[in-house]
Parts: sequence; C-alpha cells; structure tokens
Amino acid sequence: MRIILIGGTGTIGREVAKALSASNEVISASRSSGDLRIDMANPESVEAFFQGVGKFDAIVSAAGSARFGPLDDLEYEDFLFSFRNKLMGQINLVRIGRNYINDNGSITLTSGILGREPMPGGSAISMVNAGLEGFVRAAQLELERGVRVNVVSPVWVQETLLAMGNKLLEGMPAALVARAYVASVTGTMKGTVLEVDDYT
Amino acid sequence: MRIILIGGTGTIGREVAKALSASNEVISASRSSGDLRIDMANPESVEAFFQGVGKFDAIVSAAGSARFGPLDDLEYEDFLFSFRNKLMGQINLVRIGRNYINDNGSITLTSGILGREPMPGGSAISMVNAGLEGFVRAAQLELERGVRVNVVSPVWVQETLLAMGNKLLEGMPAALVARAYVASVTGTMKGTVLEVDDYT
Repeated sequence: MRIILIGGTGTIGREVAKALSASNEVISASRSSGDLRIDMANPESVEAFFQGVGKFDAIVSAAGSARFGPLDDLEYEDFLFSFRNKLMGQINLVRIGRNYINDNGSITLTSGILGREPMPGGSAISMVNAGLEGFVRAAQLELERGVRVNVVSPVWVQETLLAMGNKLLEGMPAALVARAYVASVTGTMKGTVLEVDDYT
Repeated sequence: MRIILIGGTGTIGREVAKALSASNEVISASRSSGDLRIDMANPESVEAFFQGVGKFDAIVSAAGSARFGPLDDLEYEDFLFSFRNKLMGQINLVRIGRNYINDNGSITLTSGILGREPMPGGSAISMVNAGLEGFVRAAQLELERGVRVNVVSPVWVQETLLAMGNKLLEGMPAALVARAYVASVTGTMKGTVLEVDDYT
C-alpha cells in the first residue's frame, strides 16, 4: 500500500511510520517536516496536497494541536485554535482526502483518552477528541467506494510522560500505541473508535 | 429559583419554560425574542448579558444552530458555523456564566441523539453534540461553589418531525423531552449526559 502519514515525526507518528514501513510505502507529511508539506488546518493546503501527492491507499493522522489548561486560562481563542487544528484539521483530511483516495482505502485519525475520561485542564481537548469521534461515526455512513474511516484513541504515552517528568503514571510505550493504527489500516473496521488497549 | 432560559421560544424551549415556570422565575433570553437579548456565539454578548441580568440560580440552554447536510455539501464554513453556534455558544454559557451563577447553581445544555447514533447528513451535528458532551464531562471537574453542569441529549422531537412532514418516526413530544431539563435543574447529577428516555 501507499500510505500518507501526517505527523510522522511525533512520538506516536514515528512508531506508526516504523510499523507500517515494513510492508508499505509510507509518505510522511506535516506542516514543517517529513517528505511533503501539509497544513491540515488550512483546507486549501489540504486540497493542494492531495492534488499533488498521486494515488494512495491510506491516510493516517497522528497530528493535531489542542490547548490544555484550566477553564480560568482558556480563552475563546484557545477553543477556536483547538477546533481549527486537531478537530477540523483531521476532519479536513476526511472531507477532502476521500475524493482522492483509492477504492477500499482507509483513513485513520487520532483522538485521545480525554474524550472519554476527563481530567482538570482538559476541557478543550475533551471537546476536540469527543467531537472527532462523533464526526467519524457519522462520516463513515457517507463514504463510498469501500473507503473506511476510524479514529484511534491513545492513552497517555510513556515517552511523553517521561519527557514531562511525570512519574505517577506509567503510560503505554508509543510502539504499542502504534499497533492500533496498523490494525485500522490493515483491518476491516469502519466508523470505529479504536481503544489502544484492545490492540496491545 | 431564578432561571435563565436561552432558546425558550423553540419547540423544546417552550415546554421547558412551561415546566419550570410553575415554581420558578424563568427569564427567557435569545438572539431575537424573549425577555432579554443574548448572542451565545459572541463572548462579549454573553459577558454583557450575565453582567446585566442580576443574580440567578440556573442557566438552561435549548438553543444553538448547526448545519445538517451531506458531506458533499458541507463546506469548511458550515463546520465553523456549527462550532461557533451550537458548540462554542453553549460552551460560552459555561465559561462565562459560571462566574456569575449563585452557589450550588446548575447549567443545563443541549446536545442530541446524533452525538451517539449517527445518520447520513449529520456529520457536523454529530461532531457538535459529541464535542459538547466531552466538554461537559471535563468542565464539571473544574466548577467550584457546588455549581453543576449537565447536557440533555434529546431524541427526535414529535412536533419537529410533524413540521418536517416526516411520518416514519413517531418522535417524543417536547413536553416529555422537557422533563430531562427539569431533572437536571432540580436534581443533583453533574457532568452528566442525560438521555431523555430515562426521564419520561
């Protein structure tokens, strides 16, 4: 398969790239690194990217920024930023990428555990993650030519927690998280939220 | 109690107003009708509203527009509109209203069945409804002074279906849907998605 990986230089993305590269051609794209440039938050950039990239069988997104912080600190602009980037950016990949993807292709997005298990400071991220899962369930109903869309909901990643100096949680190694992405690309599920625990 | 009702002239809102008015003072506010003006999508309008409205014990929102339509027709601007109005508009009520509400007050928002049961054409609305539910679960963790936030998820409303000429579904009469709003205001649940079926 020829797979477009957005965010392939992040903590999860690197492991997804490694796991998928064994038996596929993986093209890494992001706003600032990788083989090709794409700004998911900008529909024109997404359209131009897919027009130029050639035929492909899968899109995998391990990308998207959202703002973490207490309600007292989150301004309207922080919610708007989170919407435009992690939520609408990934929705743009589906809205636009579905018109270019090969028959029976798959699109795999990333939400996260705060969508279903909240924590203080996570209100904008919970909104984004849950909203993306709602979108994926609905969008699947309109995809044609056998195209599938799923969203992986990672738990806290071990490498991220270590980098943050958090010693309370162990987290899941990114290489294990990556397995859910591989399952989404190579499996048959559609319109599904993949809990990473189910694929380790 | 003194209750601020946003969207009290809509199909659900009218029945919520009726049910709550029996033993409370209900102040109806919306963008274009009711006792007072508020534009939820505009944070400055929301701030000005709460500054001027005086003390209150509850906010109930039965308001918020979002765009229904096939993926082929929904443009970026339709998702942005849906975000700004039904999703961020109601989040604005929480972000800003929590600073003005009395101790032990409650905030009740409206999502909808498409958040959990998708249908073709509902991708933007599913995003909004699920995102709002994610926000509510998270925001509750940061509310102080005993303030509660919940979100009611209505099913299809009978009066709306009749107005649409839909004879396939029976729907639930708005007066029954309103019971979940009353339960949220008068009960003790918090950070909860209230399925209307549970309150009829």
